Amino acid sequence: MTKEQLTQQIKAKGSYLCVGLDTDPAKLPRHILRSDDPVFEFNKQIIDATARYAVAYKPNIAFYEALGPAGWESLQKTMDYIPQECFTIADAKRGDIGNTSRLYATAFFETLGADAITVAPYMGHDSVLPFLEYGAANKWVILLAYTSNSGSKDFQKLLLADSQTPLYEQVIAQSKAWGNPKQLMYVVGATHPAELKSIRASIPDYFLLVPGVGAQGGSLQEVSAAGLTGEGGLLVNSSRGIIYASQEKDFAHQAAKEAAALQQQMEQYLSAYAY
Amino acid sequence: MTKEQLTQQIKAKGSYLCVGLDTDPAKLPRHILRSDDPVFEFNKQIIDATARYAVAYKPNIAFYEALGPAGWESLQKTMDYIPQECFTIADAKRGDIGNTSRLYATAFFETLGADAITVAPYMGHDSVLPFLEYGAANKWVILLAYTSNSGSKDFQKLLLADSQTPLYEQVIAQSKAWGNPKQLMYVVGATHPAELKSIRASIPDYFLLVPGVGAQGGSLQEVSAAGLTGEGGLLVNSSRGIIYASQEKDFAHQAAKEAAALQQQMEQYLSAYAY
Repeated sequence: MTKEQLTQQIKAKGSYLCVGLDTDPAKLPRHILRSDDPVFEFNKQIIDATARYAVAYKPNIAFYEALGPAGWESLQKTMDYIPQECFTIADAKRGDIGNTSRLYATAFFETLGADAITVAPYMGHDSVLPFLEYGAANKWVILLAYTSNSGSKDFQKLLLADSQTPLYEQVIAQSKAWGNPKQLMYVVGATHPAELKSIRASIPDYFLLVPGVGAQGGSLQEVSAAGLTGEGGLLVNSSRGIIYASQEKDFAHQAAKEAAALQQQMEQYLSAYAY
Repeated sequence: MTKEQLTQQIKAKGSYLCVGLDTDPAKLPRHILRSDDPVFEFNKQIIDATARYAVAYKPNIAFYEALGPAGWESLQKTMDYIPQECFTIADAKRGDIGNTSRLYATAFFETLGADAITVAPYMGHDSVLPFLEYGAANKWVILLAYTSNSGSKDFQKLLLADSQTPLYEQVIAQSKAWGNPKQLMYVVGATHPAELKSIRASIPDYFLLVPGVGAQGGSLQEVSAAGLTGEGGLLVNSSRGIIYASQEKDFAHQAAKEAAALQQQMEQYLSAYAY
């Protein structure tokens, strides 16, 4: 998907919501477990219920991998089912030496057909470039910068001797030259709104994928004020808050309600901070 | 597998060789492609030919993931086929927020049955601890420290303001408190023999997994002199140099020859530097 298509969709839906498909068989409503492929059946109903409110879906690959080959089948069916206009993110946090990253790119962009993959920066440029080579096919890298978890402080926040800036800023400063805003985004956790604001100032043209609203405690209002741009410029993810809003028969209806509530707030924030 | 079992195996075989199963369908001998599961058939013959010379096998997960669900089947069969006495490493370079790392741990330790998984440190302690919780089951984390690729210089080598040491040293200094030498190893590339020597001095009791000998240019002699300990203390990986020694019908025989040649050198280095 191109940046223009993503931006248009944000405008059309009045939403920058990404629904995280962290689908865990242990948390599915009991009646769903009776279907042939419960994970796909659950995702399908979640997608049907939320697609008018969401611009992106982000399957968390670990949840599928934990199920072995059957999990990959459910994942593939899910990816194929997501409506064409929605942006799809394989949340995989991969990154390896060149020949290996190239294979991950094949797996996620070609076989699975994702628009984007999350990538860990620790191994440097040659671990990221094989993914960026898919830029011409409008595929995206979403590089981890400053993640939402508490461990983000262990290394990402360490000050560097040369620049006196934290590592995550150096990751952004160096990597932005590897690609461009039409194929590269960054992960910045909703749990760091002040840092999100300064990151936004340093890279005004790049989209940010923001996890950590909801279960992890980030504020949608703060994130939106700090990060929205004239193009939208944000994808804010919610996983558990939407997909496990209810674990009863009405789960899809409750998921739709949660997604709609977020979308309505987003519509307001877009008028306030973006357009 | 316990550290004692690994150490005993190194002694018994006179080897610290890890065979990397980077099995790429495009590089398989043509006659193998006729079998029902060419990737597994290839791995099976490589394992049969090299198991007397190798103490560990390291399937590179990207190569299997790139094949979709069928790749996971080949991988599972391969893991099940590797002899019990050999140490198995899922080279996956995972790492995510806690609930997600926990699922990767399930996938690789429980479903796949690996002894160890490679983990990327960028997301910090709560991305690594769920893997270390399997220590009581004698499962291992192999944390990326200073990798063999050229991109390792981009971030891993950056000097930190507080300690005036490179990031990879800080990763080791901090993370070694998260586990212990019976469940935690580090990846240090063969392309950095001087740094490997100083890492060895700082963590004498930890095993190091060393990729980058062969195709990537590292020297087995330098690595062995710098890194061997009384317990062995090293697993040196060779992938392409062994498994693609020949792409003809004699591939398994040629793989055995390459593995045997490495094992013979290792036996000498063990007497010279270890025991």
